[in-house]
Amino acid sequence: MDRIFKERMPVSQAKEKFLASIVPLTRTEDISIRDCPGRVLATHTIAPRNVPHFRRSAMDGYAMRAADTLGASPLNPVMLQLSDVVEEGTCTRIGTGQHMPEGADAVMMIEDTISMGDMIEIRAQLHPGKNVGDIGEDIRKNEILFNKGHLLRACDVGVLASLGIREVKVYCKPVVAIIPVGDDLVPLSYTELPSAGKNLESNSLMIGLYVEQWGGVPKYHNIVPEDTAQIEQAIKENIDADMLIISGGTSVGEKDFVPGVVASRGELLVHGVGLSPGKPTALGLVNGKPVVCMPGYPAAGLVALFVFGRPALRKVANAPDVPDVIVKAQLSSKVTSREGYLSYARVILDGRTAHPLMTAGAGILSSIAKSQGFVIITEHVEGYEKDSEVDVVLIE
Amino acid sequence: MDRIFKERMPVSQAKEKFLASIVPLTRTEDISIRDCPGRVLATHTIAPRNVPHFRRSAMDGYAMRAADTLGASPLNPVMLQLSDVVEEGTCTRIGTGQHMPEGADAVMMIEDTISMGDMIEIRAQLHPGKNVGDIGEDIRKNEILFNKGHLLRACDVGVLASLGIREVKVYCKPVVAIIPVGDDLVPLSYTELPSAGKNLESNSLMIGLYVEQWGGVPKYHNIVPEDTAQIEQAIKENIDADMLIISGGTSVGEKDFVPGVVASRGELLVHGVGLSPGKPTALGLVNGKPVVCMPGYPAAGLVALFVFGRPALRKVANAPDVPDVIVKAQLSSKVTSREGYLSYARVILDGRTAHPLMTAGAGILSSIAKSQGFVIITEHVEGYEKDSEVDVVLIE
Repeated sequence: MDRIFKERMPVSQAKEKFLASIVPLTRTEDISIRDCPGRVLATHTIAPRNVPHFRRSAMDGYAMRAADTLGASPLNPVMLQLSDVVEEGTCTRIGTGQHMPEGADAVMMIEDTISMGDMIEIRAQLHPGKNVGDIGEDIRKNEILFNKGHLLRACDVGVLASLGIREVKVYCKPVVAIIPVGDDLVPLSYTELPSAGKNLESNSLMIGLYVEQWGGVPKYHNIVPEDTAQIEQAIKENIDADMLIISGGTSVGEKDFVPGVVASRGELLVHGVGLSPGKPTALGLVNGKPVVCMPGYPAAGLVALFVFGRPALRKVANAPDVPDVIVKAQLSSKVTSREGYLSYARVILDGRTAHPLMTAGAGILSSIAKSQGFVIITEHVEGYEKDSEVDVVLIE
Repeated sequence: MDRIFKERMPVSQAKEKFLASIVPLTRTEDISIRDCPGRVLATHTIAPRNVPHFRRSAMDGYAMRAADTLGASPLNPVMLQLSDVVEEGTCTRIGTGQHMPEGADAVMMIEDTISMGDMIEIRAQLHPGKNVGDIGEDIRKNEILFNKGHLLRACDVGVLASLGIREVKVYCKPVVAIIPVGDDLVPLSYTELPSAGKNLESNSLMIGLYVEQWGGVPKYHNIVPEDTAQIEQAIKENIDADMLIISGGTSVGEKDFVPGVVASRGELLVHGVGLSPGKPTALGLVNGKPVVCMPGYPAAGLVALFVFGRPALRKVANAPDVPDVIVKAQLSSKVTSREGYLSYARVILDGRTAHPLMTAGAGILSSIAKSQGFVIITEHVEGYEKDSEVDVVLIE
């Protein structure tokens, strides 16, 4: 009658199996470079012009003919006349990045000269091209500037802008349907205190905000009761989404229908993982789209979202996974793991000290509010002793 | 005549001096929790209700009177009648998080029972309250949930939403005026190839996108020529901004007016830092607002923006600095630093290998496009040998 999971798949295996099944989306759109940070290029970007597009000085100094400096040294300096044009025996003042005047083929650094009124004493010999940036020296016209698949940063936008590029082709942001399941849930719009046994449905909003942060577009679905037909209907209504995240209804209770629906409408790849909290997580495909079934308990759901939801969404989006931000800290007391589970212990960071949270059940909401990060304990480690130096993964 | 900087302040000293002079902004606004990720609380957030607001089960199992389990053990089990109500001799099925029925004061885990039709065999003794979450056990009404100054994450929004909180008071986003200075600059709207010696003004857009990323609101100013009166005028027009970033016009050329204007209109705290690239950076205050004068060369400007602009903006915003994302890598060839400078060597990451960029001048645009991160070499280190294991700070 009661379906206790007997099985749990190791996290690494579950993740590998799930990610291997995901096909990145192929839709593209042309967007302004202003909207580019965080987006992924769908084509190679070709440099439309040379940088520099004119010969320029690489130094602050004087532009001159290298031939005029032949044999110059501190003991045997050459005198050049300061002028507006460069010809035999003259030089002109030039700043870094400025256009090289006609006739000049080298720049003498200001430090290697002595200015004497309108005569400049040259104390070193230059070869042609010295301190001169040639046309295309930095970026050559028609070279590949960024490869297809490159994740664009604000500094890349600066490079694109410098080259006169105003639009680029990127992959569309994945649409992620978010479906909350639970007979205990009432919508966030409910303004009274929910009756006993009922809870405000807050997971969707949390998930949606992370989806935005990770480059997706959340599509919020109404609360679905724990009923097979209605869960099937909700999945059907979101079949065009690029990914589905279903929150709740994955656990061992009598009415946990979600994984069953995924199995019957598509392919259930994983149900039950060695993740603590987060064991009841299920992963599958419906209509070829990845489906993450997260536990409804806030802390367990959050861990499952980070461990499976984020890399899945990033793969759909053609993007590399978001790197974790890790800080080193010393434990103020020991943390223990659940044997055979990859355990996420919540900690409060106080400078370089990490205090493990004592009340760390899957459903404990305050543990999210209070903790800044996770100490991750692998399956084959029992835990860490007090005063151990540990890596703390900051909670985004 | 030529003003070469003789001085350079160590980066740590310049940063400390500059940040110490910055007063965080005090304006606040009430915003929807949906807009909260990345924002900073301007008041303590008080829990408006208890969590749970009803007595709930912490386990999947059976709710019962603890008194009925007295003396129960595997060898001496107690039989309870499955029922819809809990009274002496009966128990009721309950799932994790569900409302405890009237009369029940403990929950027996399903694993410690044997179901025999409508009789349940109880094989352990419970004390009152076992596996029951009391009202307010997780979060107590009127307790401080988040402190003033807390940087809100999406998971915190989940917590706020669960408690029925819909709006919070946060600090306003700082307005950051961005002023590009340079006689060589033409606006990005220019569609032709600029003439020789002229460049598209792309730094403002890059700076503005980072400002948005770091929680500020960019206010773009037109290109200002290298002319004292016009730079003064541009600063005056942006005197109400919370921070100013001026790009270009900080170097040693004859026409580098920006630091001079900052000195005459406010206070120039730093001009010339031991940062490579980025030496010509100037830092100061005008009208009590921080002013970052970045070199106009893209790579130098970028480094100055990360080293000084980001922490300054975050301090104005009442926010902690953005943590760097660091990956470990092995150098494929040696990197050398400039003696006495904190040096940012650009590297290309290829898995766990970091290839130092050869052409890494301050003005080299392609070095930004090509590099994924910086190897930071402190002032008293000459560099790192080939095959060294180094920290690479990823470029956001």
